[in-house]
Amino acid sequence: MVYIPPSHTDRAAEVGLKRRQPDLSRHLSAEARARLPNPIKSIWKAAQVKPGTINMGNGDPHHTLYPVSEMNFIVPSIDEHDPVQAWREGTGEQQIIASYKDEPCALSLRTAMAYGAGSGLQHVREALANLNDRIHAPPKHTVSLSLGNADALTKCFRLLGDPGDSFLCEEFTFSAMTNAALPLGIDWVPIRMDKDGLVPSDMERILSNWNEAVQGKRPHVLYTIPCSQNPTGSTLSLERRRQIYQIARDWDVIILEDDPYFFLQYDLDVRPSTIEQYGFTRAMAEVLPRSFLSMDYDGRVMRLDSFSKILAPGMRLGWVTSNDFLAEKLDMLTDSSSQHPHGLGQAFIAELLGNQGWGVDGFMKWVNSLCREYERRRNLFMEVFRREVSSTGLASAEVPQSGMFVWIKVNLDRHTRYRVMETSTVPGGPISNTAELMDELFRKLLDCGLVMMPASTFAIVDRTGRATNDSHIADRVNYFRATFVGTDETIENGLTIFGRGLEEFFCY
Amino acid sequence: MVYIPPSHTDRAAEVGLKRRQPDLSRHLSAEARARLPNPIKSIWKAAQVKPGTINMGNGDPHHTLYPVSEMNFIVPSIDEHDPVQAWREGTGEQQIIASYKDEPCALSLRTAMAYGAGSGLQHVREALANLNDRIHAPPKHTVSLSLGNADALTKCFRLLGDPGDSFLCEEFTFSAMTNAALPLGIDWVPIRMDKDGLVPSDMERILSNWNEAVQGKRPHVLYTIPCSQNPTGSTLSLERRRQIYQIARDWDVIILEDDPYFFLQYDLDVRPSTIEQYGFTRAMAEVLPRSFLSMDYDGRVMRLDSFSKILAPGMRLGWVTSNDFLAEKLDMLTDSSSQHPHGLGQAFIAELLGNQGWGVDGFMKWVNSLCREYERRRNLFMEVFRREVSSTGLASAEVPQSGMFVWIKVNLDRHTRYRVMETSTVPGGPISNTAELMDELFRKLLDCGLVMMPASTFAIVDRTGRATNDSHIADRVNYFRATFVGTDETIENGLTIFGRGLEEFFCY
Repeated sequence: MVYIPPSHTDRAAEVGLKRRQPDLSRHLSAEARARLPNPIKSIWKAAQVKPGTINMGNGDPHHTLYPVSEMNFIVPSIDEHDPVQAWREGTGEQQIIASYKDEPCALSLRTAMAYGAGSGLQHVREALANLNDRIHAPPKHTVSLSLGNADALTKCFRLLGDPGDSFLCEEFTFSAMTNAALPLGIDWVPIRMDKDGLVPSDMERILSNWNEAVQGKRPHVLYTIPCSQNPTGSTLSLERRRQIYQIARDWDVIILEDDPYFFLQYDLDVRPSTIEQYGFTRAMAEVLPRSFLSMDYDGRVMRLDSFSKILAPGMRLGWVTSNDFLAEKLDMLTDSSSQHPHGLGQAFIAELLGNQGWGVDGFMKWVNSLCREYERRRNLFMEVFRREVSSTGLASAEVPQSGMFVWIKVNLDRHTRYRVMETSTVPGGPISNTAELMDELFRKLLDCGLVMMPASTFAIVDRTGRATNDSHIADRVNYFRATFVGTDETIENGLTIFGRGLEEFFCY
Repeated sequence: MVYIPPSHTDRAAEVGLKRRQPDLSRHLSAEARARLPNPIKSIWKAAQVKPGTINMGNGDPHHTLYPVSEMNFIVPSIDEHDPVQAWREGTGEQQIIASYKDEPCALSLRTAMAYGAGSGLQHVREALANLNDRIHAPPKHTVSLSLGNADALTKCFRLLGDPGDSFLCEEFTFSAMTNAALPLGIDWVPIRMDKDGLVPSDMERILSNWNEAVQGKRPHVLYTIPCSQNPTGSTLSLERRRQIYQIARDWDVIILEDDPYFFLQYDLDVRPSTIEQYGFTRAMAEVLPRSFLSMDYDGRVMRLDSFSKILAPGMRLGWVTSNDFLAEKLDMLTDSSSQHPHGLGQAFIAELLGNQGWGVDGFMKWVNSLCREYERRRNLFMEVFRREVSSTGLASAEVPQSGMFVWIKVNLDRHTRYRVMETSTVPGGPISNTAELMDELFRKLLDCGLVMMPASTFAIVDRTGRATNDSHIADRVNYFRATFVGTDETIENGLTIFGRGLEEFFCY
């Protein structure tokens, strides 16, 4: 287990931690409770007590038969002033990230190419625990590697969800993931959002009004995307995070903090003096949002980080930070399913974050540089948006503080065919023709050669009617999710099409 | 979908295939039936009809921001006469397997490092379908990538198993995997084995004696390891395979063909003239065992192949070959869990099997060379075994035809403390003290500094008593699984310890 020293917590907090640590076992699914350790690994664990023991037990190919002696990646040099710009322009120096089977390096290919533990190789876990510690300074937690946040999240669903359970989520959310929970028998209870994201009082309302006799087990899990919430692009304020964490404590709720956009924050006031004196990690840690993990003295947060947005999606690597108890159960599930993450990626990360690579600080310099590039794209997007779209009066958008998405509100009430009825035919159902008009607009834009994601794709319909019957979410799907991470040309052309398409659709 | 032309089947068989193709939907688990397609991918699929459409929908980092422009691996040159020997001795030439982001190659890093479909990238799937076709010549089937056989197999369990289902397996099997099915509510029904593996008549007996009113749903899935069965090392004969496939047809059973050791076959009569004229793939295909896949006109086989034993376990890559219907459901599960396999490995495989790498034929040359090296180790093992172990008369072993394992029988009936009772206290339970003595012997060997895997680790106890009460498997755990894939020194020292340990244990 990777133990992260509670460096930013004082002695009193540590004592408090021990006292307050709640029993989390009630949160485990029947499947998780029934899982046995791998009998073969148990045998070998027992056998490892004696050094020099000869292993004739396992069918592990010998490292001399791995047909790879060296693996290299050509990456940007982190010594450039602005590494992302230099890389894009092709003006910067390059650097080689190398792993060897038979020569010294941070993580030998002998180890990386062998079988390993589901939680990942100790070396990589420690590097990421160190990064975590410097950014979130979490109370005692364990790092387990994942294959990215989809893998991590769907494992968490299996770990925590039994058929008939209800989980909380934002009312517009990353439906690819919430849909993945449905076949497990998990129902979603949507929490209302405003322009600043999840509304804590609505979470409190749902939990306190919950009647277990009628509605079944009270939700014991919250799935949330706190930064650049997908699809709305909102980022939760510290105040809201504190409120949400307190509500989670009051009602004993586990928080699944899915934070793939955490490292992509804009308008940051990074202090050059801190960079100079302490390096990029500390300078970034000072200004990045405070995670739920950072305030998690109970051990009720499972935080999901990913390299997909800051390195590349095809890496399929991320890490889960959680309480020891939950981490152990997660690792057992990994051992009984995907097995450990691929050695190629683990070796790459080990070398990249190691002394011969970028190091943790160099990695944070890359992240900082990446933030500025995405900030530039976001600014371009908003500038073109104002010129081509807002100017029509037919749509508007908040400026996102992080991530990749802009949540564009279409002013459908200005459409001549927009209608509002007095009541809905079904409880909580639509009282307007918002969904129909938006579908029509989506198809029109498609004809014009533009894809934006319609809000309906992300709307969580409370199928059970258990939480609230007055959400009328179908009346609030007058939004598109658009991304600003494409090229400048995509932004210019896409938003120009969008503006004209809107005007035609509104018959101006 | 990768369509594999039925090149080795004639027109009549193809017609027969269409006629006979059974409805497989009854085999799906409730979870698999309830799974929805990813709504975001569905939208994008609809949008892709028109070329040139601008995508502002997805949050995909742009390839100019991937901090990797080149990835390369130093691997053995496949031009060596015996590439494995040359590689081990360090005398051979090397070769570079390179992937680029902005330069031509088999599979660009632009594609490999992006998000992709759960089934894997088309290029890699086609390369593996081509390999499949040349070796198994399967009737119409689809290839989906996996993260290795543990990932693939546990996904198949989820795809096919509902709580309360009973699946068939060999009575000694890879318990890490069968255990992974237990938390899903799947019970295992063990089929008797002899020295040649699974006994078809026992499979027939279980299925025909099954009383659904009493025993629940008749088993509809068989999990089998046909080559170098783990742990017994046995390889099913063609005759048995045909019988088992026929029984599976008669009772409508899906066969999970878990075949990680398929490529490691010994005493092969590979014809040099075929190598010379047609290359290694055809020459190997002529002598490799016939898979269940190769005879699967019904589409009831899901075949699981892995790179773990022939490249390296840390690759975490493999492929599943199955009927289109099951493949689609498997891919949906992958999209809703682990997501697509890592791009690093996919790029490596694409280049390795491509024109600039080994090519498929070069890959099969490596496999052929690897077979000879493992055959040498097996021969050394058997030689030392005869000298150090058989000579004591206290243990014996069959010579394995494939894989990595020797199944060593301990002649416990020669032990002075060996006891047989008249009846067991529980139906099907032990009537001897075999398990106790074997546990004692395992611990003794551990004290001597040797780990071999005790048979009890792999024994499938019929917990429900549904199949048979007369297996008395605990009386037949007088075996160890030993591997011969270690170094020559491991083999020499390990078996010497084993022989002496046996003699001491038997008090000779």
